[in-house]
Amino acid sequence: MTSVELTVIGYIRTEYPDPVNMPIEPRAGGDGVVTIAEEFREGLADLDGFEHIWLLFHLHRSSAPRLRVVPFMDTNERGLFATRAPARPSPVGISCVRLESVDQISGRLAVSEVDLVDGSAILDIKPYVPRFDAHPESRTGWMESRHRSDSPSSDDRFSR
Amino acid sequence: MTSVELTVIGYIRTEYPDPVNMPIEPRAGGDGVVTIAEEFREGLADLDGFEHIWLLFHLHRSSAPRLRVVPFMDTNERGLFATRAPARPSPVGISCVRLESVDQISGRLAVSEVDLVDGSAILDIKPYVPRFDAHPESRTGWMESRHRSDSPSSDDRFSR
Repeated sequence: MTSVELTVIGYIRTEYPDPVNMPIEPRAGGDGVVTIAEEFREGLADLDGFEHIWLLFHLHRSSAPRLRVVPFMDTNERGLFATRAPARPSPVGISCVRLESVDQISGRLAVSEVDLVDGSAILDIKPYVPRFDAHPESRTGWMESRHRSDSPSSDDRFSR
Repeated sequence: MTSVELTVIGYIRTEYPDPVNMPIEPRAGGDGVVTIAEEFREGLADLDGFEHIWLLFHLHRSSAPRLRVVPFMDTNERGLFATRAPARPSPVGISCVRLESVDQISGRLAVSEVDLVDGSAILDIKPYVPRFDAHPESRTGWMESRHRSDSPSSDDRFSR
C-alpha cells in the first residue's frame, strides 16, 4: 500500500481567499464557518462542550512536495518534516481552532483562531483533549529562537 | 471533490500487535520505531531538536465508520466527532509522541509514549509546536468527568 484515501466531510469559509498574506499560526487567525455535509451531521452531537477542536484539512493550494524548505519563520533551509510548511507528500494540515458554536441541524460550526484558506476541504474533526494533546513546555529545536514577530504572515513561497 | 489521496511515507513498529488491549492515550503508551522510506528521508533534517512530534497515521485496523459511538472512556453514546474513536469517515489518527532519536541515514526514528498499532502506515510527521498546539486548560465537554482510571486500555469495540 502506498496511499490512503480520505473522505471530505465538509468545507470551511474563512476570510483568507489566498494562501498569501494570511496568518501562519492559528492564534493570530480570524473567524470561520465550517459546514459539514448532511450525511455526517449526526456525528456532531456532544461536540459543543469542547473549547477547541482539531480540523484536519486538505492543503489544496500548496505547491508540489519539497523535502527541503525555507519556512516562513526562518531564513535557513530545513527538512520538511521539521516544519509545518504545506508542500508535503501528504498534503493534510492539522489546526487547533477555537469552537464558538455548533448547529447540528444545519451542520454549521462557528470557529475562531483560524489559519485556513477559504474553501479548504475538511477531512476530519476531533475534540482537543489536553491530556492527549497539550505539551506546553515541549522543546522546538530550530524554532526556539524564532518569535511571532519574525514573520506574522505568509508569502507565496509554498502556494499555487 | 469527495476524497483526498494521501501518501504513505513509512511505517511504525510498536509493542501492540492488535487494537485490543492497548493504551488509549499516548502518555500511557510504550516505545516504537518509525522507519521512513528512503525517498523521503531528506525531509528528516532538523527534526532532532524537537521533543515531541505529531504522527499522522492510517487507522488500518478500525471498523467501518459510525456516526454514533460509545467511546472507551464512557458508557454513553456520543457523536463520533466529539470522540477520538477510530471508526471515522477519514480513518486517520493524530498522535503526539515523544521523539527519542533520529537517524536520517537509516530513516529510523525512536519514539516513546506511543499508542499506535504495530504496522500502522505513517502519512506525515509534523513538529510539535506549543505556540500552535498547546491549550492545557481547554474545556473538554463530556470528557470533563472522565479519568484515566475509567478505562486504561482498549477493547474490541472499534477493531477488525
